[in-house]
Amino acid sequence: MGKKIVIVGGVAGGASVAARSRRLDESNEIVMFERGPHVSFSNCCLPYHLSGKVEDHEDLVLMKPEQFFNQYRIDARVFTEVVFIDRENKEVTVRNVVTGKEYKESYDKLILSPGAKPIVPPIPGINNADIFTVRNVVDIAKLNTFIKEKKCKNVSVIGGGFIGVEVAENLKEAGYSVSLIEAMDQIMKPFDVDMVQVLHKEIYDKGINLILGDKVEAFEGNNVVLASGKRIESDAIVMAIGVVPETDLAREAGLEVGVTGAIKVNQNYMTNDKDIYAVGDAIEVFSALTRTATKLPLAGPAQKQARAVANHIHGIPVKNTGFIGSSCIKVFDYNGASTGLTEGQIKAQKLDINYDIVRVIPQDKVGLMPESEPLHFKLIFEVPTGRILGAQAIGKGNVDKRVDIIATLIKFNGTVEDLADLELCYAPPFGTAKDVVNHAALVASNILQGTFKQVYVQNVRELVESGAFIVDVREKDEYELSHIVGAKNIPLSEIRDRLDEIPKDKKVYLHCRSAQRSYNACLALGHLGFDNIYNVSGGFMGISFYEYFHDQVTDREKIVTDYNFD
Amino acid sequence: MGKKIVIVGGVAGGASVAARSRRLDESNEIVMFERGPHVSFSNCCLPYHLSGKVEDHEDLVLMKPEQFFNQYRIDARVFTEVVFIDRENKEVTVRNVVTGKEYKESYDKLILSPGAKPIVPPIPGINNADIFTVRNVVDIAKLNTFIKEKKCKNVSVIGGGFIGVEVAENLKEAGYSVSLIEAMDQIMKPFDVDMVQVLHKEIYDKGINLILGDKVEAFEGNNVVLASGKRIESDAIVMAIGVVPETDLAREAGLEVGVTGAIKVNQNYMTNDKDIYAVGDAIEVFSALTRTATKLPLAGPAQKQARAVANHIHGIPVKNTGFIGSSCIKVFDYNGASTGLTEGQIKAQKLDINYDIVRVIPQDKVGLMPESEPLHFKLIFEVPTGRILGAQAIGKGNVDKRVDIIATLIKFNGTVEDLADLELCYAPPFGTAKDVVNHAALVASNILQGTFKQVYVQNVRELVESGAFIVDVREKDEYELSHIVGAKNIPLSEIRDRLDEIPKDKKVYLHCRSAQRSYNACLALGHLGFDNIYNVSGGFMGISFYEYFHDQVTDREKIVTDYNFD
Repeated sequence: MGKKIVIVGGVAGGASVAARSRRLDESNEIVMFERGPHVSFSNCCLPYHLSGKVEDHEDLVLMKPEQFFNQYRIDARVFTEVVFIDRENKEVTVRNVVTGKEYKESYDKLILSPGAKPIVPPIPGINNADIFTVRNVVDIAKLNTFIKEKKCKNVSVIGGGFIGVEVAENLKEAGYSVSLIEAMDQIMKPFDVDMVQVLHKEIYDKGINLILGDKVEAFEGNNVVLASGKRIESDAIVMAIGVVPETDLAREAGLEVGVTGAIKVNQNYMTNDKDIYAVGDAIEVFSALTRTATKLPLAGPAQKQARAVANHIHGIPVKNTGFIGSSCIKVFDYNGASTGLTEGQIKAQKLDINYDIVRVIPQDKVGLMPESEPLHFKLIFEVPTGRILGAQAIGKGNVDKRVDIIATLIKFNGTVEDLADLELCYAPPFGTAKDVVNHAALVASNILQGTFKQVYVQNVRELVESGAFIVDVREKDEYELSHIVGAKNIPLSEIRDRLDEIPKDKKVYLHCRSAQRSYNACLALGHLGFDNIYNVSGGFMGISFYEYFHDQVTDREKIVTDYNFD
Repeated sequence: MGKKIVIVGGVAGGASVAARSRRLDESNEIVMFERGPHVSFSNCCLPYHLSGKVEDHEDLVLMKPEQFFNQYRIDARVFTEVVFIDRENKEVTVRNVVTGKEYKESYDKLILSPGAKPIVPPIPGINNADIFTVRNVVDIAKLNTFIKEKKCKNVSVIGGGFIGVEVAENLKEAGYSVSLIEAMDQIMKPFDVDMVQVLHKEIYDKGINLILGDKVEAFEGNNVVLASGKRIESDAIVMAIGVVPETDLAREAGLEVGVTGAIKVNQNYMTNDKDIYAVGDAIEVFSALTRTATKLPLAGPAQKQARAVANHIHGIPVKNTGFIGSSCIKVFDYNGASTGLTEGQIKAQKLDINYDIVRVIPQDKVGLMPESEPLHFKLIFEVPTGRILGAQAIGKGNVDKRVDIIATLIKFNGTVEDLADLELCYAPPFGTAKDVVNHAALVASNILQGTFKQVYVQNVRELVESGAFIVDVREKDEYELSHIVGAKNIPLSEIRDRLDEIPKDKKVYLHCRSAQRSYNACLALGHLGFDNIYNVSGGFMGISFYEYFHDQVTDREKIVTDYNFD
């Protein structure tokens, strides 16, 4: 005999529990409550309504309640809020938010999928400003209608996470003047500060007023006043600084909430009540890399949790190996993808992990192909085991492929040796015979074996300012186009004949365009008796991207005569 | 002290051994002999010269001998053929192919990287036809010059492997009338016969005269006479039926050749002479999936072998876990990728493997995104372990990503459960929250658990002809647009109310567009007491693609009222 399965929240996780529960048992009674007007809409597509890529906001709704009933015999009730859980009697009190009418519904198993709500802090003036958040179809339609009807010109987006960046991009593409304001010194935390500069540059170059490291202090009407004293003119404000799990219902029912402030669940996504499960943005999950509880408000994990819950209810064992966090984003012409740990995260959380990184910028396809583009790739691995901890990729091409490969490796505790050994698809329109990821793994393996030493693009400014000995091993014509201020040009093709120009009594820093030729030069010099040779990981291109954005928005001195981005 | 390393063949494998050997020891003496005019050219890009995508054939040459010397101190000698190996005295006799002058060169370690040559069978009339093969820059320049200068209109390409298809595509894009002739019933063996129909359709739709299952019997001038009696008018002929390893030099030196006809090497790519190694298209490798020797003429593996050889010469241990074979190809607007075993290969080689397959055609991105396209995906897995054996993907989008993920899994002996559990990058412009590969894994896991039964698109014609009971569970409007001849329409949304229309005493075959709704219907009916329900894997779209091309070129009866390709 089937069970009566009651679900709180009809988007993503909730809808997936319902559908899977139906597939597992035709005799289940399945009721799904949703406070808003829509079940099963595409959260992730919301920002694309602003640019008109998704023209009609109704299209964001994937399934109507009638379809849930017709196709799955799922009783989906919209405009219906669950206001109380009576755990003892196993029933919930629900309220129709339109009529205010309340009634009770019993359950055998209750699934909480309430999601997370946008944070709107009590900033002075906020009540007199036109503040929008982006959580659901109603929100995005409201924002879009407002800026169109009020003929807004300037829109401020506060917060440089996924939603903030995607909203800013889509508003810009719709023709608005957009300011993107982030209190930290970078947007998009899934990327490290050295990598994310590529996105900063793209956002800046596409004409968005990108402001970093400056906090909102107040609103004056719809204008934004920042800690620096800057005043950003705007006609509407999108608040996207983060989300907080919806835990009120769970807390009131005495369900445990974890250290992260999200609902605590066990390996089967069961709360401390054996008949109540929870999934999605409202719960905390186990990080397979930090081995601690964490929040991971992403759609993919929510779907997996939903399936696991339906399985567990139906006696199918659940395998829960934890989560690593994989994500990607399109930012105008660039794509970015990230998985696992970032260097920033290791440092911020003071994780007791001994690691090193590789930063390479090879072409993503054979150079002869017109679509070939530089791909910024960063690999983070444990020392001395070589176990891969994370990766980030940014470029105009197929970055998600590279990061998905790493995500797959991480699930198997793969090492840099495993990565070097992977046999990947290759034809000139798709990649190179030795793919970016293989290449990065080979460099990593050389680092582990102590074959060469490196410094990072973040260190170069200090090196230049302290008068370090920097050798540019690119050919003369490349050097003449642009180079690091004060760097000496000894092309790789001449270096063996000009050894006397390289000091042995101090550290020497070698770089080329992307760190490949300088790597060869480092090894040659190492064999020839030079002990103090360092490769600049990321090369001149990496340095150019790292310095560019900040050079544009501050009046600091440039450390390169000009940039080189490809 | 360094070694004297002599390399036979300066392309791909050979050049890689040379460069890596330099990096490992600056004091090595490295000599590389190449019979042709070029070392280090891009074999894989050769076809793209025909369409002008690579405009100047000189651009196909990646490094000139001077650059090898300047950057790596590698002595690359072109127009120089190694004609004899004196193993006892460890020296080779080389001949300058321009002057005919011969001399000897000693070696400490000799590396053979002679490649494989195009097969040109003794077909009647071949000596009077303008036959071209595509192995190197000279070949492709010769072909391109000939067809331009002779103002050729019709070109016949014989052989539907990678080179044949890429040459045909690029010739067509250059404006020639192209016939692509393949003796087997399909092109591109890395794809199974059900999958490859998508490529057949694309090639046919783009206006190439695709001829399958017909053998070349003779040439009459440049016209091609086929076994069927068909006569293909042409002004030039490209022969691309396959390659055979260059083993003459090795055989004459008494080096062992394996069962495959390629040079036999041990785990370190060493021949039966401890001072002679071999790499690339001339050697046989160990298949990690069939556990037998095989040939794998691909660029990626050649590079890995090259690195392994250089490492082994320098005392670095080599890990050789065998090869699985990953490849991809662009065919006009479609991309195809494949890894591991195919169903065709398992059958042809009569491998003792118990396997099953999943064939799904989900959208490759969120349906709301304008760039969303169907992705044809096939997963092959072992029964009952679920170990993944291979995968194929074809579509307009990112197929290589999906197949690279599978290639990574295969290296770790991953199962369908592991694949379902992968956390991959997701945002609407890139994919779906449950990616194609996760989705396929979940279906596979249901098959393993016996949750439902399936038939394949290849079976549908026979089912139709034998009057089987086929139910189309798509909505009425979809059915009315096009459907299988004789299929009954019971939409998923109505099926629970129309159970009496479904017989219990015979097999019932369910399908929808892509097999997703019919899967739900199969499960519902199973729960409701129907035991003989089969899902048509691949759905109506799969059937349409499977039947289309053959319906166009034969006069057989159509089993669908019309096709549906998206």
